[in-house]
Amino acid sequence: MAFGWIDEQARARRRAGLVRTLRPRPADSPLLDLASNDYLGLARHPEVTEGAARAARSWGAGATGSRLVTGTTELHAELERELADFCGFEAALVLSSGYAANLAAVTALAPHGSLVVSDAGNHASLIDGCRLARGTTQVVAHADPDAVRKALATHDGDAVAVSDTVFSVDGDAAPLAELAGACREYGAGLVVDDAHGLGVLGEGGRGAAQAVGLAGADDVVVTVTLSKSLGSQGGAVLGPARVIDHLVNAARTFIFDTGLAPAAAGGALAALGLLRREPDRAARARAVAAELYARLTVMGLRAVRPDAAVVSVRAPSPEGAVRWTADCRAAGLTVGCFRPPSVPDGISRLRLTARADLSGEEIERAVRVIGETRP
Amino acid sequence: MAFGWIDEQARARRRAGLVRTLRPRPADSPLLDLASNDYLGLARHPEVTEGAARAARSWGAGATGSRLVTGTTELHAELERELADFCGFEAALVLSSGYAANLAAVTALAPHGSLVVSDAGNHASLIDGCRLARGTTQVVAHADPDAVRKALATHDGDAVAVSDTVFSVDGDAAPLAELAGACREYGAGLVVDDAHGLGVLGEGGRGAAQAVGLAGADDVVVTVTLSKSLGSQGGAVLGPARVIDHLVNAARTFIFDTGLAPAAAGGALAALGLLRREPDRAARARAVAAELYARLTVMGLRAVRPDAAVVSVRAPSPEGAVRWTADCRAAGLTVGCFRPPSVPDGISRLRLTARADLSGEEIERAVRVIGETRP
Ligand SMILES: Cc1ncc(COP(=O)(O)O)c(C=O)c1O
Ligand SMILES: Cc1ncc(COP(=O)(O)O)c(C=O)c1O
Repeated sequence: MAFGWIDEQARARRRAGLVRTLRPRPADSPLLDLASNDYLGLARHPEVTEGAARAARSWGAGATGSRLVTGTTELHAELERELADFCGFEAALVLSSGYAANLAAVTALAPHGSLVVSDAGNHASLIDGCRLARGTTQVVAHADPDAVRKALATHDGDAVAVSDTVFSVDGDAAPLAELAGACREYGAGLVVDDAHGLGVLGEGGRGAAQAVGLAGADDVVVTVTLSKSLGSQGGAVLGPARVIDHLVNAARTFIFDTGLAPAAAGGALAALGLLRREPDRAARARAVAAELYARLTVMGLRAVRPDAAVVSVRAPSPEGAVRWTADCRAAGLTVGCFRPPSVPDGISRLRLTARADLSGEEIERAVRVIGETRP
Repeated sequence: MAFGWIDEQARARRRAGLVRTLRPRPADSPLLDLASNDYLGLARHPEVTEGAARAARSWGAGATGSRLVTGTTELHAELERELADFCGFEAALVLSSGYAANLAAVTALAPHGSLVVSDAGNHASLIDGCRLARGTTQVVAHADPDAVRKALATHDGDAVAVSDTVFSVDGDAAPLAELAGACREYGAGLVVDDAHGLGVLGEGGRGAAQAVGLAGADDVVVTVTLSKSLGSQGGAVLGPARVIDHLVNAARTFIFDTGLAPAAAGGALAALGLLRREPDRAARARAVAAELYARLTVMGLRAVRPDAAVVSVRAPSPEGAVRWTADCRAAGLTVGCFRPPSVPDGISRLRLTARADLSGEEIERAVRVIGETRP
């Protein structure tokens, strides 16, 4: 029977306790949220939701076509100018998601005959970008510039290194400056995914590249998402204008995809306006993460020192992580639960996200619940 | 130098006259639009834009996380129920784009060891899905059930056939019933992309599968986009509940992507409400396409008889297509221009889209401009 193998897989998942189900949330949840990626608390900020609502009214609910046909509005152009300017790059290209932006950047910058050096901890979208690219991928040890150097040394021709700036599972940062150094020794390009860095790292949230002086470099390309710190939806590629022009002509997930909905562009633009006016939000998100980490480790929990706003806490087992998450929820707290097969290293963890708008009392409460429910 | 090869490619593109540039449009363009995929004229319908605006206000500008973490709201669940019900399927899963929906469906339904039989005219997103899938892909002749049969006969094991329902370039329809017949002979699944069928084909726009009695079949999976007839953004996979559950657990572009923005979900829901209340829009879009086709061919232009709302008109050359498009624009009409390398067959064409809300006078004007500017 068609799709018959699905039922076997479903049974295996049930036996292993790995079934995932969707849990629709109401508009106003009483739960304390330490699970979303809304790092700056902007997704429901009235200026951001009004920016989205206004854009839908002025420009329509959808972009109506590919960015190359009817899908580029002046709002898209404004968002691109503003993203490039805020992050310190020459140009930007907005796509319908961060996932699409990563597929676009990696596939368009890794042509046939080239080498892609990819960190073992990279996000699924970068991995899929490597698999779609015509170049050859070499996966290297996590956060290891020497491994990147060695891989680049084996290849005679064009090459790029690809890495998350802040790894989504453990929240640790890539050694960006060293990676750029390694790439420069070999004339290779560097493509980094700043999904978890934009809004959190760098001056006023200008991102990981700005933080280490790489913004605007002619051999660095940064991808971002509009769906985390900017509280909206969409993604973008930032880099030299010549690279962006190349993507317009070559990136399939740009060319063959409908442009980002005006509401998402309008929301992200409003969020960028807030970041400029209230530059302390970025530092506050980092401070909340540092406090969560300090207090959880004092209690004897094993956590990864956060380089941005993600705090990863070890769980004893997949089942332990699931139970811990459920117990937190029963006590009024939502946390992320990362476990196999979503985590390639097989380690289960609670994933907490620090939000800039968490109050002292909320941090207190979160820490207490996590401690009281620990398996 | 890093990315040095880009400049050579850019020069080659310039020499070949194939440079693509973005042309931001204002909110209120005086141009007559025969280029967008807004087939039912809903992207700017006040009910649809209000649906989007209201959703942004009630639910936030973004979904804040993966659908598996915080990114599923009750609005997403409502949209999924409504899409499934409208199109006649047991269940639906909403993703951030039609592109992501195609990647999800193909990769999750073509595991290691399986065969994917893919129509040579399929959309880029289905092709990329095939390339990402662990199964082996065999590309077969366009719209040819016998070719599908032959490919399936060579394989001993699980298989799926994958096809657009309405091909995006020429607007011709796939032989859906025959494809399903071929698949059933071999116990294979059928995955079809109804991006250009939803809202246009079937009773009241219920889509290509409904039109041929395949809606709800246990061996058929349909992907749709919310960005064309529904005037919004996003995509969905429709099928048996067991297939949808499988995607929740296995589809990377679902699991590792932020949920669709509430505004896009709200806009699409409002559009579905309109389709239910005003079921004649679908037939009107088809009638406009038929009229455009009839009048253009009477003038001696070579066009493909439209099976849905896309009318493809032959251009003499890539340069001819570009000039024709520019001349139309100068005369107040936007049409799509498809040319290499976006079209694999190397044929350049004007691509016109019929909108249900085009008036007789507008159709008249469009035909006149296209005729007067023909190369
Ligand atoms: C590191 C990283 N890159 C890319 C993405 C994808 O971005 P988006 O959700 O906007 O598609 C995510 C998460 O969603 C991520 O964590
Ligand atoms: C046939 C087809 N499938 C899928 C897509 C992708 O849908 P979306 O634009 O919603 O990503 C498109 C066009 O954009 C298309 O024409």
